[in-house]
Amino acid sequence: MSKPTLSFWFEFASTYSYLTAGRIKSLAEKEGILIEWKPFLLGPIFKDQGMSDSPFNLFPTKGKYMWKDLERRTEKYGLPFSKPDTFPQNGLKAARITIANLDKPWVHHFILETYKVEFSQKQDISNVSVLSQILKSLGQNPENIISTSESDENKNKLRENTEQARKLGIFGAPSFIVNGELFWGDDRLEDAIEFLKSRS
Amino acid sequence: MSKPTLSFWFEFASTYSYLTAGRIKSLAEKEGILIEWKPFLLGPIFKDQGMSDSPFNLFPTKGKYMWKDLERRTEKYGLPFSKPDTFPQNGLKAARITIANLDKPWVHHFILETYKVEFSQKQDISNVSVLSQILKSLGQNPENIISTSESDENKNKLRENTEQARKLGIFGAPSFIVNGELFWGDDRLEDAIEFLKSRS
Repeated sequence: MSKPTLSFWFEFASTYSYLTAGRIKSLAEKEGILIEWKPFLLGPIFKDQGMSDSPFNLFPTKGKYMWKDLERRTEKYGLPFSKPDTFPQNGLKAARITIANLDKPWVHHFILETYKVEFSQKQDISNVSVLSQILKSLGQNPENIISTSESDENKNKLRENTEQARKLGIFGAPSFIVNGELFWGDDRLEDAIEFLKSRS
Repeated sequence: MSKPTLSFWFEFASTYSYLTAGRIKSLAEKEGILIEWKPFLLGPIFKDQGMSDSPFNLFPTKGKYMWKDLERRTEKYGLPFSKPDTFPQNGLKAARITIANLDKPWVHHFILETYKVEFSQKQDISNVSVLSQILKSLGQNPENIISTSESDENKNKLRENTEQARKLGIFGAPSFIVNGELFWGDDRLEDAIEFLKSRS
């Protein structure tokens, strides 16, 4: 029998997705569960809600708090942090690379490195050369990987993920789906795992 | 030396404030800290952010999730829950009663009973007779208490709390202030207590 599986929906622009990406792998191993990694885009979903920017920019008082909270939480989790100059960043290219390589063992390192570069090294992940550098550091060939990720077939895979997220009632990131039930936010990861284990 | 103190900012209309009100007293006793109870109104603060209603109504997908999340969390905390017919409810009168009686031993029971009536008994706490019933059940004289709470002096106290909340950068409820530092959400209560204890 296969291990119980939790779907982890993440967006590369999302600060709280970084927190989860930084701890979900070791937590899943400890708990004996599998993670299905589901990159998607929040932009179209925020648009559905009438928002043309991150809520942390639209509501500056909340945004100011979020950065303070993220500083405290990254420290708690032992993750590097430095407030980026650009927020939110366009995670489209990173998401396409991820979705095209979900079967590769290096993809989880790529995901976490991309978040770290974005949220602790003041680099912009919409920049191809930044992504190339990460791929190179993982011993991969950036040109091949990036060109494959820009195929129409692969672009459609990401569109389908975003459409699926919308249908699941996802409105933010990170989100977790267990047996069709939605949990939102890094704060609910433990609850989602508990729910999964109680139903396995 | 007095015990370390955490300020608990709450709004009677707020679902997640109910979660905190339902567990903060026993947690504070266990942790050896004092709670400063700070009722305030979110309405004026939401208006500052350009919102004329609860974000859970303005963003219905998020709202739908919130009720599911609240159902799960109240179960986890052992609190009664039944989705109210009216949301958000006007907590003005309840907040005035609270602020006028913060030195009374029965006030914490009044706060929690008001939340329970609102979020598990389908009653409307903007209704004076509902509040009277709660006060009576606590052995108090509703007429005296309600008329005192409607004095100009007491109305001003609540206005001052709301103004103070705004100055502290509070944008939602529940919020916690420790040494001037803001923690937002029932999920951050443990972090706020840890922060307080590390600085005491």
